[in-house]
Amino acid sequence: MNLKKIIKNDEKFAEIFANSPAEIIDKWEVKDYDKAEVICYQGEISDYFYYVIEGYLNIYLMAENGSKYVQSIYKSGNYFGELEIFNQQPYVCTVETLTPARIIRLQRKYFMEWIKKDHEYLLYLTKTLCDSFYKLSHKAGEDMLYSLRYRVCNYLGYKVEERGSNSQIIELQIDRKQLSDQLAVTKRSINRVLKGLSEKGIIELKNTSIIIKDIKALNKEEEISRYK
Amino acid sequence: MNLKKIIKNDEKFAEIFANSPAEIIDKWEVKDYDKAEVICYQGEISDYFYYVIEGYLNIYLMAENGSKYVQSIYKSGNYFGELEIFNQQPYVCTVETLTPARIIRLQRKYFMEWIKKDHEYLLYLTKTLCDSFYKLSHKAGEDMLYSLRYRVCNYLGYKVEERGSNSQIIELQIDRKQLSDQLAVTKRSINRVLKGLSEKGIIELKNTSIIIKDIKALNKEEEISRYK
Repeated sequence: MNLKKIIKNDEKFAEIFANSPAEIIDKWEVKDYDKAEVICYQGEISDYFYYVIEGYLNIYLMAENGSKYVQSIYKSGNYFGELEIFNQQPYVCTVETLTPARIIRLQRKYFMEWIKKDHEYLLYLTKTLCDSFYKLSHKAGEDMLYSLRYRVCNYLGYKVEERGSNSQIIELQIDRKQLSDQLAVTKRSINRVLKGLSEKGIIELKNTSIIIKDIKALNKEEEISRYK
Repeated sequence: MNLKKIIKNDEKFAEIFANSPAEIIDKWEVKDYDKAEVICYQGEISDYFYYVIEGYLNIYLMAENGSKYVQSIYKSGNYFGELEIFNQQPYVCTVETLTPARIIRLQRKYFMEWIKKDHEYLLYLTKTLCDSFYKLSHKAGEDMLYSLRYRVCNYLGYKVEERGSNSQIIELQIDRKQLSDQLAVTKRSINRVLKGLSEKGIIELKNTSIIIKDIKALNKEEEISRYK
């Protein structure tokens, strides 16, 4: 497998690399990862720019005491390594696969050459960077300013929306550890909030899933807790 | 005052606008603000890209309950409005002057024309965007993952460093409201931490300032609280 083949099979990548010089297309390396492998370690300095071709990646920060803060989940078409590449800084986040994943990577010197020559790509990079920056700014604000109850309701509501189901009762596969990392709080705090929602009859807690019994009440709860 | 005069008087801006087409240089408007004026409101849609020429700006998010989260302080040479301009999204943050300030602004259509024509500037924009994005990612991680005690010690340590003084005892002008916004917690929580540091003899609390009595002990306190 190489980038040329990937471009042939996927319109999205064909567009991204449409104006890239052919000699740089040849420099990309393809790498496959299993589930739960680390691609980049927070604090490490590396020399590559990456694209996700297939699979899902967890982008998170970790503190000395082991607690995690998930900043984003990346999927096919997302890139990483750009924040560090210009000044060769240590990775601000760890990047770990959530599923088996295929990524491609390009050495810094070729990345620099590429963006020097490909104005269309640089425009695309700037726009998408602004979009991700906007999202993180918004997320950091929500995470800092709102109660955990609001953030849990908001997360469940988002998951319901993502499922796009029309049924009255929805079962979501939710790993509590992942939820606790996502919201950067202890599992104990998460469980306290979930128990409160369960006692109100809004959700039902199963071992590896959460059943949303009353979507309207969940949305109401989200709204009320936003103003507290 | 216009941008041409600003460029003539300031090397930093001469470099930023070095390759900008002359007809776009003419489109920038200069605007002066007093202290504590809002330039952009969170949630509002506008049509401009901005540069700070003089003064300091507070970049913050605000929740419905009135609590604030300061994401950054901007000064001469920083720009804003770029995150929203491509997709004409509502401002993610409010931008408010901390001091009297001079800013310049450019309408979206001219901004788009500029970055289409000026590859050097687009490279500069991408690099500086990555730098700011990196800083926010790091800050959000620190804010979410570490205790308030750590964050207060870290902030005071940073202020001491910024002063670059060699004296043993340093008096910092610190507005507790600004500190509470900066760390997105109540003034009460801030006061609890400050009182703890004061009882240990590390700082002394004055009405509008904080005296750092023992810088070594402050650094030690910062390190210990990082691992909790």
